[in-house]
Amino acid sequence: MVPVDPAWLQRAADYQARLTMPTGALGRLLELGRHLCAIQETLTPRAEPAAVLVMAADHGVAEEGVSAYPQEVTGQMVANFLRGGAAVNVLARRQGAWVFVVDMGVKHSGPLRAAGDHPDFVGDRPLAPGTANFLKGPAMPREQARQAVAVGRQVVVERLASLGVRAVALGEMGIANTTSASALTAAPVTGRGTGVGDDVWKHKVAVIERALELHFPDRRGPVEPAAALAAVGGLEIAGLVGAALEAASRRMVVVLDGLISSVAGLLAARLEPAARDYFVAAHRSVEVGHRAVLEALDLTPLLDLGMRLGEGSGAVLALNLLQCAADVMRDLATFETAGVRDR
Amino acid sequence: MVPVDPAWLQRAADYQARLTMPTGALGRLLELGRHLCAIQETLTPRAEPAAVLVMAADHGVAEEGVSAYPQEVTGQMVANFLRGGAAVNVLARRQGAWVFVVDMGVKHSGPLRAAGDHPDFVGDRPLAPGTANFLKGPAMPREQARQAVAVGRQVVVERLASLGVRAVALGEMGIANTTSASALTAAPVTGRGTGVGDDVWKHKVAVIERALELHFPDRRGPVEPAAALAAVGGLEIAGLVGAALEAASRRMVVVLDGLISSVAGLLAARLEPAARDYFVAAHRSVEVGHRAVLEALDLTPLLDLGMRLGEGSGAVLALNLLQCAADVMRDLATFETAGVRDR
Repeated sequence: MVPVDPAWLQRAADYQARLTMPTGALGRLLELGRHLCAIQETLTPRAEPAAVLVMAADHGVAEEGVSAYPQEVTGQMVANFLRGGAAVNVLARRQGAWVFVVDMGVKHSGPLRAAGDHPDFVGDRPLAPGTANFLKGPAMPREQARQAVAVGRQVVVERLASLGVRAVALGEMGIANTTSASALTAAPVTGRGTGVGDDVWKHKVAVIERALELHFPDRRGPVEPAAALAAVGGLEIAGLVGAALEAASRRMVVVLDGLISSVAGLLAARLEPAARDYFVAAHRSVEVGHRAVLEALDLTPLLDLGMRLGEGSGAVLALNLLQCAADVMRDLATFETAGVRDR
Repeated sequence: MVPVDPAWLQRAADYQARLTMPTGALGRLLELGRHLCAIQETLTPRAEPAAVLVMAADHGVAEEGVSAYPQEVTGQMVANFLRGGAAVNVLARRQGAWVFVVDMGVKHSGPLRAAGDHPDFVGDRPLAPGTANFLKGPAMPREQARQAVAVGRQVVVERLASLGVRAVALGEMGIANTTSASALTAAPVTGRGTGVGDDVWKHKVAVIERALELHFPDRRGPVEPAAALAAVGGLEIAGLVGAALEAASRRMVVVLDGLISSVAGLLAARLEPAARDYFVAAHRSVEVGHRAVLEALDLTPLLDLGMRLGEGSGAVLALNLLQCAADVMRDLATFETAGVRDR
């Protein structure tokens, strides 16, 4: 994996100055256009075909009562994805993006089997029926965390690269996975989760703090990503780390969604710093911790719509902005061709 | 024209609570969905067909050197719109929106004639070859301002209503029209334009202040919209006021773009307060004054992407969010139908 070449950013900026508009008048859409040019090393980029990769798994820490929903909901929602009825499906249809759903370790998988075969479902890769409760020990063995990352890479190779996907939005589903993601954020980024509020939230913070004391008693300096994943991570989060790495290495644009997806991006960038050059932050989630993760990645989100759903929903929304940014580079008339006087 | 019925906002909120996601998790997309439901009085709203109405005219005040571009550019850019090469065309294609271009008073119309007949061009309605320099007298006679508003209404009836358009983005083109819009903002809203910076900007502010002293020497209390339009307005701005009024009265969603389009919305709301219930603020423009106009309308913009192009470009971008919001209301599975356990 190599960083993007800044010479392409400059070439794209030079070309943008010739387009029929005052210099820079489309703001971040032009910044996004230059970014696409640098990633694809062309002045005529495309953000299509686009896909959403939704990785799902369960979390042992759910038994601590950190979520408003029962654990069965993970599998039920995956079945909902396969029937096309969830928010990510509805939004992806609007943007013309494919939805691929991966079972990385769903515990109650009955509803998945009931949903039957589905061409865009990767159902044969679960490494375990979810993680263990990380308040009682590691979430998963180190080796399993590595395998989950490898599965994420493999899915990108087999499902996305083979279709020529140029932009991939990273989504997830897993009851209690914000607790895992918050613990991952606290470990390598901020040292401590923040936030007070209602009782469930206070309890969730307490759970994360106990987990951090258990797994990282000596909290100085960053934790190695694979160790953090094994200690407090999730199978779907590890899968997304692999997906982000593989997609970036293949020069796909990697669109990060909310807290969980962005934590996966951050871990990927800790493993391979150049990966970050291929990331776009879709939106600022309401979820506490997302801000810290985006700051650690030095990414400014495109949208700020008070969303906190996950599934990749915010990333899918931002695909439209990527596609518009690519269209502007490809299709806008220049002052010369349009016969418009420049100043 | 009637205000939207708050009972429909509540009905929509009740239905949203049944959709397969945590309550409120799609943030402003859900707010937008409720807004669409209230405007259309249905739980299955649509933001399609969508159209952009780009109204163009020239401004006599351009001779004061307030723009970086020569006045010929207005007509050249309208020709660019008709050939489909401008930003608004490129973005509208992506969102599946029609582009209608209206000559409300383009001075150098040679390029328009060269562009030939175009089915989506309203070229037979210019009331004058632009406005007069409002530093030397009124921009236009009162009667002409009224006629321009009427033309705007008529275009909505003939071109949009006849096609069943449900969402209309308001765009504009006119060299020096931010000076006119700033003067309109200062007259009925803030009392005085603000901003310091380079020499052209300082000069522009001075021009606006001289115009306000000339036309509104007794600057206490709001100015009547038609009087403000005649004094310092523009033909395309008056046309947009009429378009906003007519579209709102026909329960179309009216998507405001940047400063100029939003000033037209504000004047429309001063004439008919209920019109505001049909408005959506697409984005926060970089343009000074836009913030004051949106505050006066009590609208929070959806996007903040550092844009300042006009043409309706920001409004067209936001159409995708409207369409997604409508899709969410129409197509998302409920907990009941999807067999997902609610908390």
